[in-house]
Amino acid sequence: MLFDVFGTVVDWRTGVAAAIRRFAAEHGLELDAGAFADAWRSRYAPGMRRVSSGERPFVPLDVLHRENLDGVLEDLGLDPERFGPAALDELNRAWHFLPPWPDSVPGITALKRDYIVGPLSNGNTSLLLDMAKASGLPWDLILGSDVSKAYKPTMEAYLRPAAMLGLHPGEIMLAAAHEADLAAARKAGLAAAFISRPLEQGPGIPGAGVATQSWDLSVSSVTELADLL
Amino acid sequence: MLFDVFGTVVDWRTGVAAAIRRFAAEHGLELDAGAFADAWRSRYAPGMRRVSSGERPFVPLDVLHRENLDGVLEDLGLDPERFGPAALDELNRAWHFLPPWPDSVPGITALKRDYIVGPLSNGNTSLLLDMAKASGLPWDLILGSDVSKAYKPTMEAYLRPAAMLGLHPGEIMLAAAHEADLAAARKAGLAAAFISRPLEQGPGIPGAGVATQSWDLSVSSVTELADLL
Repeated sequence: MLFDVFGTVVDWRTGVAAAIRRFAAEHGLELDAGAFADAWRSRYAPGMRRVSSGERPFVPLDVLHRENLDGVLEDLGLDPERFGPAALDELNRAWHFLPPWPDSVPGITALKRDYIVGPLSNGNTSLLLDMAKASGLPWDLILGSDVSKAYKPTMEAYLRPAAMLGLHPGEIMLAAAHEADLAAARKAGLAAAFISRPLEQGPGIPGAGVATQSWDLSVSSVTELADLL
Repeated sequence: MLFDVFGTVVDWRTGVAAAIRRFAAEHGLELDAGAFADAWRSRYAPGMRRVSSGERPFVPLDVLHRENLDGVLEDLGLDPERFGPAALDELNRAWHFLPPWPDSVPGITALKRDYIVGPLSNGNTSLLLDMAKASGLPWDLILGSDVSKAYKPTMEAYLRPAAMLGLHPGEIMLAAAHEADLAAARKAGLAAAFISRPLEQGPGIPGAGVATQSWDLSVSSVTELADLL
């Protein structure tokens, strides 16, 4: 039972916005922290696509997040040089310490009794490890995207972890809040569970958290998933 | 806090010998199960050396164990073909389900409160995962040798997991019952803790479990290690 992480297991927007608020206060900046988090996240998929397309060799997500942070600052007319690398590296580490949704730890703990539980995330291993230690996510193992050296939704990102687990793809279910991730997992032969996370992008987004396709399971929390399984 | 596994965390000889006894009974063989386990294990290091020397490309330890099993059977005048691959594959999986020494689970559980805990083993990820699930070893993460694609005692086997953890080698301590492993870890920059396991090779071995060098720590159990740290 593998999980997408950003948005599915943890609330990236709340966690990143809180770190931005601290950063802004330390540096005397006036910023809309939620909009900053959204801008940072909007560079996430394009950054990975440049790796997946072969335009650049694989680099860990920490590196992409850090480059994307510079880009967001520049878009706001802020020169990244002004802050120094240590302050920006620290802000970048906000992605290592995102808060889980309230049902994530109890749900994964319940599933762990009968299933192997782990992340199947574009995050690198050290990011996912920091997050697990800080928030008590009881993964059986952590194989970050730097192990498979592939980003979702490429097929290798699903098939390489399956091979390392010694499992056929059909023996694995991916749980995710994002239908593109589930569609790619299904194409790779995995089962797919949709978890509705209507608040992932913040409150008041029309249609947020509603599945547009039919999935093997469709739930609104990891605890509901554990109850069903 | 990373751990060698075979002999340090788990009692491979007892576990493998028990599986051999079951196998012998099923197939009507008269075997010395302890001697069989010793013969199987004696092919372990030479098998990995052929990978580390570049004589052959990396293959997971499961593959080496399986080849070595054929060799042991042949040495005993038993044709592996006689048993069929499924029976031998099952016997080979004995290495996935070895019993921990009595102090391993409580000691690693105690260390987990303040440290990252994981195996640093020549075992492949699926082997270490099966073992953890069966015996309750509460690893924070499992990066098998199929992740680093390197066998101890080559330097890459220590340095690649360190890089993936986002740690400098000096921030990591390896605990092992084998001084050659600790010496290589030290050369790679890790701290080294010796755990005495006098029964690893079976009872009554002169000098077993005695360190011949000075290490950063020297203990007789994982619980003692946890108490010291």
